[in-house]
Amino acid sequence: MKTYNLALIPGDGIGVDVTDAAMKVLGAVAKGRFAFETTSFPWSCEYYLKHGRMMPEDGIETLRGFDAIYLGAVGWPATVPDSVSLHGLLLPIRKAFNQYANIRPHRLLAGVEGPLKAEGFDILCIRENTEGEYSGAGGRVHEGKDNEVAVETSVFTRAGVERILRFGFEQARSRRGHLTSVTKSNAQKYSMVFWDEVTRELAAEYTDVTVSHMHIDAMVAKMVMAPQDLDVVVASNLFGDILTDLGAAIQGGLGFAASANINPDRSAPSMFEPVHGSAPDIAGKNIANPVAAIWSVAQMLDHLGEAEASAAVLSAIEAATANGIGIRPGLNTTDEITAAVIAALEA
Amino acid sequence: MKTYNLALIPGDGIGVDVTDAAMKVLGAVAKGRFAFETTSFPWSCEYYLKHGRMMPEDGIETLRGFDAIYLGAVGWPATVPDSVSLHGLLLPIRKAFNQYANIRPHRLLAGVEGPLKAEGFDILCIRENTEGEYSGAGGRVHEGKDNEVAVETSVFTRAGVERILRFGFEQARSRRGHLTSVTKSNAQKYSMVFWDEVTRELAAEYTDVTVSHMHIDAMVAKMVMAPQDLDVVVASNLFGDILTDLGAAIQGGLGFAASANINPDRSAPSMFEPVHGSAPDIAGKNIANPVAAIWSVAQMLDHLGEAEASAAVLSAIEAATANGIGIRPGLNTTDEITAAVIAALEA
Ligand SMILES: CC(C)[C@H](C(=O)O)[C@@H](O)C(=O)O
Ligand SMILES: CC(C)[C@H](C(=O)O)[C@@H](O)C(=O)O
Repeated sequence: MKTYNLALIPGDGIGVDVTDAAMKVLGAVAKGRFAFETTSFPWSCEYYLKHGRMMPEDGIETLRGFDAIYLGAVGWPATVPDSVSLHGLLLPIRKAFNQYANIRPHRLLAGVEGPLKAEGFDILCIRENTEGEYSGAGGRVHEGKDNEVAVETSVFTRAGVERILRFGFEQARSRRGHLTSVTKSNAQKYSMVFWDEVTRELAAEYTDVTVSHMHIDAMVAKMVMAPQDLDVVVASNLFGDILTDLGAAIQGGLGFAASANINPDRSAPSMFEPVHGSAPDIAGKNIANPVAAIWSVAQMLDHLGEAEASAAVLSAIEAATANGIGIRPGLNTTDEITAAVIAALEA
Repeated sequence: MKTYNLALIPGDGIGVDVTDAAMKVLGAVAKGRFAFETTSFPWSCEYYLKHGRMMPEDGIETLRGFDAIYLGAVGWPATVPDSVSLHGLLLPIRKAFNQYANIRPHRLLAGVEGPLKAEGFDILCIRENTEGEYSGAGGRVHEGKDNEVAVETSVFTRAGVERILRFGFEQARSRRGHLTSVTKSNAQKYSMVFWDEVTRELAAEYTDVTVSHMHIDAMVAKMVMAPQDLDVVVASNLFGDILTDLGAAIQGGLGFAASANINPDRSAPSMFEPVHGSAPDIAGKNIANPVAAIWSVAQMLDHLGEAEASAAVLSAIEAATANGIGIRPGLNTTDEITAAVIAALEA
């Protein structure tokens, strides 16, 4: 039996609650299939308040040896500004391990009611995860003065753009053969025109994939007006961030939105985390929806080569929601939803 | 009787169709109230193909003397790249005339069915319109090579940020007293942290306005999950662009989304234009929805001080849609919808 070494970073707030739920489900699906060991790291805003940093100096090196990383959520804005907590933990891990493809599936689980009248959509968003608008390049001049100027520079490299688009084309090929590339090249004439050019170059190579070019503004409208027309969507760091929260919303809320930060070359571990944040207001109350966190476990299993276990977790989630468990906020506790998924797994 | 001098730029595609409709309605509402003269400028992609530029060199100076500018839509990507047509006409006008506040109302008109289950929302989006992510600053290095890098720099000035936020606070004060400021300060630590700081400074001044800070990703989710919680929304150029197309979608489509590019100091003319684009595929077919264009006329009248005429146009639009006219694409021709609005005005 294979043994997987997993690094856990429960993080802050409900990150802890849902990581706990996710690991229970992992334990249940592992039985008879594989073994795993977890090492839990307490890196979080609490850790920051004690140590003045979100993770130890050798944090990245510590994580490097694991087969995968599982993260709950990071952030506790009342004590540590998000711009510090995220730049000190989540974002550096994505960059250091070249987890350049952030994969986020959006569809309505059985039994879940979304905010849209439209229902039959099945979208796979691929978000660039290491550069672009979140490069962290910029500065402020004349700080605090009347003539202050703040600049923030988006940086797009050909290698960075090409690899994420190629990943998107491959995903489209393995699904319904359609790729939507999202930019804003009518207003951002350097970065986004460049992205469009690379898309066109690759399209000539992937002739079996049909490609649509959409602007981000038209795209958010499309996501709510005709989501059923979309298959694979590929976008920059910021645009992917926006589209995947919108995707989460149309699938019923952030509690249902899973995410995988993938290093496709496997030169370093990938990281799996629900899209939602740490939600300090509901932390520790046994009411967070663990579905996104559990779905992220399914993504992790798939990445580790445990396709059958991955599919089992997804079916178990959907068996629970089809029974009406966890389909609306406040309906069930975190524990009840987790138990329902495990029961379905073991049935 | 007052006479207004209006500059018309019908532009491309359905821009021409809806400008025509809008001017018919303006003619009807003017009767007995005010006089107006229009001067039409053929600046468009067709103009570009003949003259190598979107407007004459003295275009801006030509427009300066008018009381207001009315624009249909710009762009014909099959012949002129959007990055050329928009940077040659629409964007320079917004900047040159300091039309820094782009005002876009989002609510469901009577009779119109939106894509959401939610209904009773009434949102006023205020978009920064002159700088930020659409500053046009950037470049490309090693073009066409493997090591190519494209950069695009967002530029935010204190004056630019403060004036748009102040405008937002004032609007909130005149409505339901709530302002939502949208940034992404957890990932963009220069520009967006700066914006948040200025928001907090002003909030201390406008103690009668309640302020929420939202990240753009959480905000797009909120727009579809709980739009009824929103009153006035203020955002940067890019974020406002995205939110207002989403706002258009939830109000039933781009055919219903009006927009005013306002110079609040009145040191230069303001410009009124529907949010939708030129839609080349349906141009000239008498099927474009003129409601957004007509609603933009109401915004223009309000800006010109004709509050009563403005309200009359809005009621007439809603009388038409309440009768089922123009509430779905394909239901009525442009002419029929226009005639229904005029009939309601004259009733
Ligand atoms: C917390 C934040 C920095 C993060 C991001 O924008 O990457 C989150 O919104 C996400 O989508 O994973
Ligand atoms: C056409 C484009 C440049 C424009 C913008 O983004 O400003 C449009 O989308 C709008 O919203 O007015």
